[in-house]
Amino acid sequence: MNTVYVELGERRYPISIGGGLLGRSELFAPHIGGRQVLVVTNETVAPLYLDALCGTLSQWQCRSLILPDGEQYKNLTELNKIFDALLEHRFDRDCTLVALGGGVVGDMTGFAAACYQRGVPFIQVPTTLLAQVDSSVGGKTGINHPRGKNMIGAFHQPRAVMIDTDTLTTLDDRQLRAGIAEVIKYGLIRDEALFSWLDANMDKLLARNSRALAYAIEHSCRNKAEVVAADEKEGSVRALLNLGHTFGHAIEAALGYREWLHGEAVAAGMCMAARLSQSMGWLTVDELTAAEGLIARAGLPIHPPATISPATFLEYMAVDKKAKAGQVRLVLMRGIGEAVVTADYPRDKLVGMLGGT
Amino acid sequence: MNTVYVELGERRYPISIGGGLLGRSELFAPHIGGRQVLVVTNETVAPLYLDALCGTLSQWQCRSLILPDGEQYKNLTELNKIFDALLEHRFDRDCTLVALGGGVVGDMTGFAAACYQRGVPFIQVPTTLLAQVDSSVGGKTGINHPRGKNMIGAFHQPRAVMIDTDTLTTLDDRQLRAGIAEVIKYGLIRDEALFSWLDANMDKLLARNSRALAYAIEHSCRNKAEVVAADEKEGSVRALLNLGHTFGHAIEAALGYREWLHGEAVAAGMCMAARLSQSMGWLTVDELTAAEGLIARAGLPIHPPATISPATFLEYMAVDKKAKAGQVRLVLMRGIGEAVVTADYPRDKLVGMLGGT
Repeated sequence: MNTVYVELGERRYPISIGGGLLGRSELFAPHIGGRQVLVVTNETVAPLYLDALCGTLSQWQCRSLILPDGEQYKNLTELNKIFDALLEHRFDRDCTLVALGGGVVGDMTGFAAACYQRGVPFIQVPTTLLAQVDSSVGGKTGINHPRGKNMIGAFHQPRAVMIDTDTLTTLDDRQLRAGIAEVIKYGLIRDEALFSWLDANMDKLLARNSRALAYAIEHSCRNKAEVVAADEKEGSVRALLNLGHTFGHAIEAALGYREWLHGEAVAAGMCMAARLSQSMGWLTVDELTAAEGLIARAGLPIHPPATISPATFLEYMAVDKKAKAGQVRLVLMRGIGEAVVTADYPRDKLVGMLGGT
Repeated sequence: MNTVYVELGERRYPISIGGGLLGRSELFAPHIGGRQVLVVTNETVAPLYLDALCGTLSQWQCRSLILPDGEQYKNLTELNKIFDALLEHRFDRDCTLVALGGGVVGDMTGFAAACYQRGVPFIQVPTTLLAQVDSSVGGKTGINHPRGKNMIGAFHQPRAVMIDTDTLTTLDDRQLRAGIAEVIKYGLIRDEALFSWLDANMDKLLARNSRALAYAIEHSCRNKAEVVAADEKEGSVRALLNLGHTFGHAIEAALGYREWLHGEAVAAGMCMAARLSQSMGWLTVDELTAAEGLIARAGLPIHPPATISPATFLEYMAVDKKAKAGQVRLVLMRGIGEAVVTADYPRDKLVGMLGGT
């Protein structure tokens, strides 16, 4: 087992990475203060891992709640089911919530923990590669609104992140590739060595080589932990983690949070950011080709859905959380491993990249 | 105009108290960073003060949202209307929310501000006495759940509190009395001098003598600001502000947040706490009589609704936010001006006080 720490002073917490972690109650014990535990999961993950985790947590009063699976359920209605369960079982302020699942379960459980009785602790147990390398770390929690992704939420750090790499054995190929998108993201924005490693090891990752997966997870978590420790509330550098996300969130919202997975939308969004960067002379053609090539080799989309018009893109992008004084700020690339947040891009080049004229 | 500060370091903020504040844009300007302002109010307050406030804020892009009036609307459905409005108008992270109304409007607007894009600034403009002396100060925000009052929320401090005492001229008598309940609360828990002043000046308050009202508001805000500065997140002394609230919240939830106003439920709850305290020998009969007498003179209930059984009380009290390890902790009195939080009370005396045998 490897451990990476998110250094946030008194709220410092460990990311434990390894096989068989779901069964090790001694890893959970230091992070559970009260007697009551609610495990929140979804209908895909529950049959696979819920019994095992509840067994591990049997020294506490462990309840569980199973939500439907999918980004389209990351909404206020499903969130309220978590509050209903907590109150039905009379959970007090010393309770602990545990998120067992992917990014949707993690974001919703974390947000419920942020709001229940104005804040209770929670633990992330991510079971998708995307959640393991990105969304379970850093304390961004929330739900979607029909007009915009993650528009309602809170910064609320988990007490611990338990990454049981064995859970990846049951992950379907499409979800695996979606997770690889966020690994590639760290390479593109700040870790050229990781990008090179991915270029050399993509086949191993796709073949689920366990050492390759462990390497990708650990290096992703290190990148995420460093950025979050430097800028928890996204006042500056944390915004770089949003490479591809302004375009990606617009894709997800425009599709009603259906059809495309988050990682797929981010993959296409990163290619869009790279193409805009290249058109501005910030990225060479070779760098653009390398970025698009790696994303394509991961089996991920490099273009947005053909059905989304430039006008629709601009409409959804307008509510992006990085927007300031009516200006949409974008994360663009200045090289492989170097990204910047900027509102200083020619609008005609943006519209051109989106497919307008 | 008088100003009381809530001393919270970098998040220090002023409570401005005086007549005509709604019209003074220079008081608002230092607390509004961006261009976009959303004023949230309700259908009772809107016809009285919304146009005036929007006029005062006309140098910003000022939008407004009118919610229905009443505690029964402090729920997820109405909260979502605030998010809808913010996104419809493409409000960004630099926007400011303004709560114009009583405690319900203030709590919901503050909670929406806490969650929108993971946190934007807000300003409290309380127009009921209760909101002016209590709920607008201190950053407790949230909504109710059918099973429990204020169960879903956040600590999110306002940037400023603007108490325009002129708004009390349109407040109906019942709402005025409900506000006086929270003023009496400060006297009972930590300010014997305020209790004596109330005893001598209750008639003036009920007659809306403006100097008496200003005195009551300022001294209440000073008490609240001191407690919040000492214990923002209710780790210790802030819980004392909940005198009467465990019983009061049970009354409100049991009535479906209808019929009784919050201040009325708190008034009856404080008398219940005083009676339990007296039965335990913590309060003399004279002190109990003085407390009940002052509350009765304010035209407030000293007993709970006859329809709520002891069993119902205990059920709703079980989810109180002060509960710990299955034990409901109560705020009880050790004298006029002295309160304590304790789980150390005989259960038979509690049940007896509730009307059981």
